[in-house]
Amino acid sequence: MPDAPRPRTLCYQIFVDRFAKADGSTVPPLQAGAAPWLAHAGGTLDGITARLDHLAALGVDALYLTPVVRAPSNHKYDTESFDEVDARFGGDAALDRLAAALRDRGMGLFLDAVFNHVGETHPWFGAARRDASAPEATFFRFEAHPDRFAHWRGYGHLPELALDRPAVRERLWERDDSVLARWLGRWATGLRLDCANDLGLLPCGRIAQRSRALGAPDGVVGELMGYPDAWIAEGRLDGVMNYFFRETVVGLCTGDVAPAQAAENLARMAAECRPEALLRSWNMLSSHDVPRLATAVPDRAARALAWALAFSYPGVPLVYYGEEVGMTGGADPDNRAPMLWDVGRWDHGTHAHLQKLAALRRDHPALRHGRFRALPQPGCPGLVAYLRVTDDPRQAVVVIANPTATPVRARVFAPYAHLLDALPMRDLLGGAGSRMHGGRLDVTLPAWGVGFYQPDDTTIPGYTFFR
Amino acid sequence: MPDAPRPRTLCYQIFVDRFAKADGSTVPPLQAGAAPWLAHAGGTLDGITARLDHLAALGVDALYLTPVVRAPSNHKYDTESFDEVDARFGGDAALDRLAAALRDRGMGLFLDAVFNHVGETHPWFGAARRDASAPEATFFRFEAHPDRFAHWRGYGHLPELALDRPAVRERLWERDDSVLARWLGRWATGLRLDCANDLGLLPCGRIAQRSRALGAPDGVVGELMGYPDAWIAEGRLDGVMNYFFRETVVGLCTGDVAPAQAAENLARMAAECRPEALLRSWNMLSSHDVPRLATAVPDRAARALAWALAFSYPGVPLVYYGEEVGMTGGADPDNRAPMLWDVGRWDHGTHAHLQKLAALRRDHPALRHGRFRALPQPGCPGLVAYLRVTDDPRQAVVVIANPTATPVRARVFAPYAHLLDALPMRDLLGGAGSRMHGGRLDVTLPAWGVGFYQPDDTTIPGYTFFR
Repeated sequence: MPDAPRPRTLCYQIFVDRFAKADGSTVPPLQAGAAPWLAHAGGTLDGITARLDHLAALGVDALYLTPVVRAPSNHKYDTESFDEVDARFGGDAALDRLAAALRDRGMGLFLDAVFNHVGETHPWFGAARRDASAPEATFFRFEAHPDRFAHWRGYGHLPELALDRPAVRERLWERDDSVLARWLGRWATGLRLDCANDLGLLPCGRIAQRSRALGAPDGVVGELMGYPDAWIAEGRLDGVMNYFFRETVVGLCTGDVAPAQAAENLARMAAECRPEALLRSWNMLSSHDVPRLATAVPDRAARALAWALAFSYPGVPLVYYGEEVGMTGGADPDNRAPMLWDVGRWDHGTHAHLQKLAALRRDHPALRHGRFRALPQPGCPGLVAYLRVTDDPRQAVVVIANPTATPVRARVFAPYAHLLDALPMRDLLGGAGSRMHGGRLDVTLPAWGVGFYQPDDTTIPGYTFFR
Repeated sequence: MPDAPRPRTLCYQIFVDRFAKADGSTVPPLQAGAAPWLAHAGGTLDGITARLDHLAALGVDALYLTPVVRAPSNHKYDTESFDEVDARFGGDAALDRLAAALRDRGMGLFLDAVFNHVGETHPWFGAARRDASAPEATFFRFEAHPDRFAHWRGYGHLPELALDRPAVRERLWERDDSVLARWLGRWATGLRLDCANDLGLLPCGRIAQRSRALGAPDGVVGELMGYPDAWIAEGRLDGVMNYFFRETVVGLCTGDVAPAQAAENLARMAAECRPEALLRSWNMLSSHDVPRLATAVPDRAARALAWALAFSYPGVPLVYYGEEVGMTGGADPDNRAPMLWDVGRWDHGTHAHLQKLAALRRDHPALRHGRFRALPQPGCPGLVAYLRVTDDPRQAVVVIANPTATPVRARVFAPYAHLLDALPMRDLLGGAGSRMHGGRLDVTLPAWGVGFYQPDDTTIPGYTFFR
């Protein structure tokens, strides 16, 4: 097995139909219609290629695209073909072009692997319904052929694949010409695995194992809306879309989750999850399936705190397209609105904040792949604090967040042997520095303020703290 | 070593002299007297046999009897003979009949092994005092023969046995005809070991080892009024009467122990104690040595919460006779009053509650022998929450208790990989259900309310959450 690769700096999620037209221009506003999931707005893969400078400037080094293969809907989770990129997105050639452009820039590409179910128009399902003795009939679980079959969470148009049948597994991930092998061989550096928990632990582990065998550098990241531990244990997934992180941090920023509870959740998850897999999980605050951050958290300062946690907690921060410019939107289709390319309407403060955070994450190994150390502060229950460390103590970062609307001056304990007494600590985010004193540091934080405190061993001429 | 047996569903403690007369009828009221421990009220072993239907209807599958061998007092901790069942209780034949009836019903029988001391009327002590060179003189520790000798906690009539002397150990537990071997061979499926901490760790461990070698299915449960960890470590006791549990839960229900402290105590004990031994320990709320629950906790709703914890925390719930019908009573002899057989005076609500809890514990493996997972809720410090799980996630039970006089609506985090997003959760206790969402569930609980939330994977036709 090859070494686990370094986690990416920043992964950017694109809902393809809504990002940009082929020339990079803005997708037109959505038309109200009876079936909003069927209307295609015109975003394409070439449109993404045309906009890679925007992503690079933000600090993005990996893309996650919602499904691109042919399907009736604009979201394309109702797969009609595992073989062809949807012509409305530009077809196979457009994905070739995007993949090549990403390779040139050293960016990764996660494709969305929807293996739990297909759409009712998929030819496998058609063959299965027509003829109960067709080979494809074994791909599905019919309770009563042809009308009663297992389907995903009550959605009758999404028949579930019988992943316990060898023939299905062969097609999807086992064979040399499986869907997995073809996508990884031609386009993708990693896969996002749709509704991973519906596949079960063993298939998730096998799919990740196959992607490793095929040399995919970015591995398999599963969609997991609950608590991740067993799903990213040894032999399972390489990472998850971390919805438990989102639940904790969004709740923290709306006041629905107390700071001490958020600190407990983050500490427990770091203690219980396989560290390498947590580092490769996605610290997400929004996606196409939940409200955008600016809608979920109306307070702008609170959102800035949420981003600081997403960029400093173990994991790869995930930015859903448009979040970097402050787009709003609740339930579908509002959270899938056309990407805002009118710079005049951007939230430039958010854009600059994310750029700064991405640069810090890129430049500071402790943030990117450091170990996590919880810093519970029962004496200051209004704070969230933790430490990221590598083997070089100069790189350590103490993260302290004040998730309240009140400025605080607090005495924070950061028990770690290499944070030596009298060591000056500078705030990488530009706030006031501090100094270690007997294992603690006193900090002053504004409402919703965050500090990333790092040792500064340059202040005493002729003396160095670290030997 | 044989596999550890499954823990019992419910163990019922009987103070033999006070339970029932030989025909099952009510023992007469106690007479006030100068030496209340000497007055025998007339309860017998046949009286217990006559009342087994009552116990079976409650859900009892093991009995613990205070000592039954001959002694002057009614409590019989002042042993006069290790060989004969006290004639006032019906003698050996009555215990034979009771043991046979229990075997027929598949119920266990714990006899009370008082090995730390004997009564001053025991013939060993008589021989020892008469002749300093008698073999029995080595059974005791004389500071000055015959009048100064080690005795239990200032009680001069309870001379302590010198358990470091091989001859005493041989008689009590080592030989094939030892007290231990005879009791286990003829009557008992397990032993309750009186004042285990006074025996010391090594003798406790050896006694448990001997009982295992003799095939006793219910093992040796020690009386332990402090914190149990080392006492039930590998090679020590099989379980304890868990007074630390009682201290925590009774304090919680009187308001003397904050919910967060109770949650901490329960979490720490589960983390530090050998799991199999905690499962076989007794979750007790009262006994013949402490006030009855209804006296210690006057609030009826608070008592119901205490019982819910006793039946859901790892361990075997212990019901002291009469608690199931709401008897009251403080210090001896009030807490040892005659069992109330007048159904018209029963607290039927408590009886039904315990019946329901026993049935749930019997039917739900997670409650009976599931692993414990602490669910600290610093964000809701007024709650006590924990999880019991087996390898089958359908059996998981999230226990959430509101030990306050105020109804709550709370967001409770239950981080566990198999509590999948959107999973419906029903309350086994009949309250309102809930649904998992990103690793949390929102619950509404009345004052002193408790919910036992379990996955309900039956709500979406054609779809199953667990794969």
